[in-house]
Amino acid sequence: MNDRFLRACRRQSVDRTPVWFMRQAGRYMSEYRALREKYSILQLARTPELACQVTLQPINEFSLDAAIIFADILLPVTPMGVNLRFAPGPILDNPVRSAGDVRRLKDFDVEEGLGFLFESVRLARRELDGKVPLIGFAGAPFTLASYLIEGGHSDHYVLTKAFMYEQPEAWDLLMRKVRRITADSLKAQAAAGAQALQLFDSWVGALSPDQYRKSIQPHSRFVLDAVKGLGVPVIHFGTGTNGFLEDFAASGGSVVGVDWRIDLDVAWKRIGHGRAIQGNLDPVLLLGSKAALKKDVRRILGQAGGRRGFIFNLGHGILPKTPVENVRAAVDCVHEGRS
Amino acid sequence: MNDRFLRACRRQSVDRTPVWFMRQAGRYMSEYRALREKYSILQLARTPELACQVTLQPINEFSLDAAIIFADILLPVTPMGVNLRFAPGPILDNPVRSAGDVRRLKDFDVEEGLGFLFESVRLARRELDGKVPLIGFAGAPFTLASYLIEGGHSDHYVLTKAFMYEQPEAWDLLMRKVRRITADSLKAQAAAGAQALQLFDSWVGALSPDQYRKSIQPHSRFVLDAVKGLGVPVIHFGTGTNGFLEDFAASGGSVVGVDWRIDLDVAWKRIGHGRAIQGNLDPVLLLGSKAALKKDVRRILGQAGGRRGFIFNLGHGILPKTPVENVRAAVDCVHEGRS
Repeated sequence: MNDRFLRACRRQSVDRTPVWFMRQAGRYMSEYRALREKYSILQLARTPELACQVTLQPINEFSLDAAIIFADILLPVTPMGVNLRFAPGPILDNPVRSAGDVRRLKDFDVEEGLGFLFESVRLARRELDGKVPLIGFAGAPFTLASYLIEGGHSDHYVLTKAFMYEQPEAWDLLMRKVRRITADSLKAQAAAGAQALQLFDSWVGALSPDQYRKSIQPHSRFVLDAVKGLGVPVIHFGTGTNGFLEDFAASGGSVVGVDWRIDLDVAWKRIGHGRAIQGNLDPVLLLGSKAALKKDVRRILGQAGGRRGFIFNLGHGILPKTPVENVRAAVDCVHEGRS
Repeated sequence: MNDRFLRACRRQSVDRTPVWFMRQAGRYMSEYRALREKYSILQLARTPELACQVTLQPINEFSLDAAIIFADILLPVTPMGVNLRFAPGPILDNPVRSAGDVRRLKDFDVEEGLGFLFESVRLARRELDGKVPLIGFAGAPFTLASYLIEGGHSDHYVLTKAFMYEQPEAWDLLMRKVRRITADSLKAQAAAGAQALQLFDSWVGALSPDQYRKSIQPHSRFVLDAVKGLGVPVIHFGTGTNGFLEDFAASGGSVVGVDWRIDLDVAWKRIGHGRAIQGNLDPVLLLGSKAALKKDVRRILGQAGGRRGFIFNLGHGILPKTPVENVRAAVDCVHEGRS
């Protein structure tokens, strides 16, 4: 097996820098768009054979060093009793606005509510046949709670922050419900064959460090502690965390994922060289010329400095209009190294 | 005159912490909404009597320690030859997409193209009658250039970054045109009576530190150097800069403005205690309860630690739905201090 990715997560020596991309299966690939003509995002994610197929699309196309299961961080909200649809962004029709709403959220058993996801993991693991490791994932408590409260995308997280400040007990209950489901889902994905896990706290950068430490960190730490002993590396990813990267890293994870708004060497120093790091190409670079793209890939490799424990990735997900040939060029450039 | 704000900018002792808020004149005030029923944003900004009136609205309502001239960072694009309207966000009908477009941008004389703005400053200065100092402002080269290229609000700044990477000479010419106008506008505002200046690089947080240093910093520095010798304090403000705050601060400004995604004491240490700092309440706190608001105001005052050179502000502008009584509570709480 190509185990560069797992070795780098564990800060072991590697022959080449491992690379994978967040949202590496998605609209930018014609194979994905073809499936999306027939199926909705939720159909793809909830049908193990289709989710497995999508998971493998980028693996068949590029020399990536890891696969990530095709799923969505919002999948748990449906078994919680919240209606989810995409139009095209996520819309939650009955969002959480009161303590009563929180109490009504179902504390479902993940094997019952998310069984299809673990079956997707089992299938994808089998189909990958040891070619590259498979990553399982879940949304972090804050990011998931923010969707449950806002009911979709939000610019300022006004409702979420109001909930956090004005209904601290209900907030705490919500976070406890979400973190239990998140931890259980990650554990079940590992049990089903995921060889690494990533916790996505995509919108945590909306917060002040004080808000993060008081209202979010204990819950992220709960999840990261719960999956620490599973024997698989855990990547803790967030964007907009550069003002409180030390706090974010302190929540846990064997690997910390950073966005592109910080120099990789600066980020690694702040996280501490005892941890692995994942990042941090600006996704927009994948939309331009190969020359600019390769230059920036090499710059990041230079900042990683050949140190053990670096996984090349983007600072956020691949954008839909990304040309396939640029993804290939980036992957190959990472493998060629900085010289 | 209440000179607390100017004294803090100069890191002199003050009797109370000075406070003002970005977008302190705006939709959240009924007096402003009443004027907006009769006039468009551009009519308000381009009519000195009206701009002066709006500038004074929050000063008459709250015990703020500084006024900021009512204007818009996009005002210079019209005399550059780009059509600007608000619907309700800014739309630039003929954005810059090529080297030819850049060359066609008019290098206008600010006294001719922005004379109304300097007249607004003169009027507001007279009307304020020494009550509080008046701040003039302009958009920083990157933020202004990004609007010129994108033609309005942007999520990922794809066109701006493509322009920067793929047309470096045209980008350089664009930045030189914009920086000259920005510097001239700030100088003319100071000459008209502005007692402090703020350079808004609101969207600079979209960039990687490498992009910032190579393609933006020389131009921000040009502007900040140009206004350094005017004898008025200059505030250099950005959001999303916490990954490269040292670079951002190194561009210049006697005061550095930071967003809410960093602890004020951490930010000040990274900027250096030889500089004044402005910030950094989460604007969303102004939408909730007074109890949570006051607690966070006191937390920030505590992080400032009584050190000379702190100006209380938000981490970004006041949101439109902010209750007036919360603005009053925040201002009074800052003046009461942290005890």
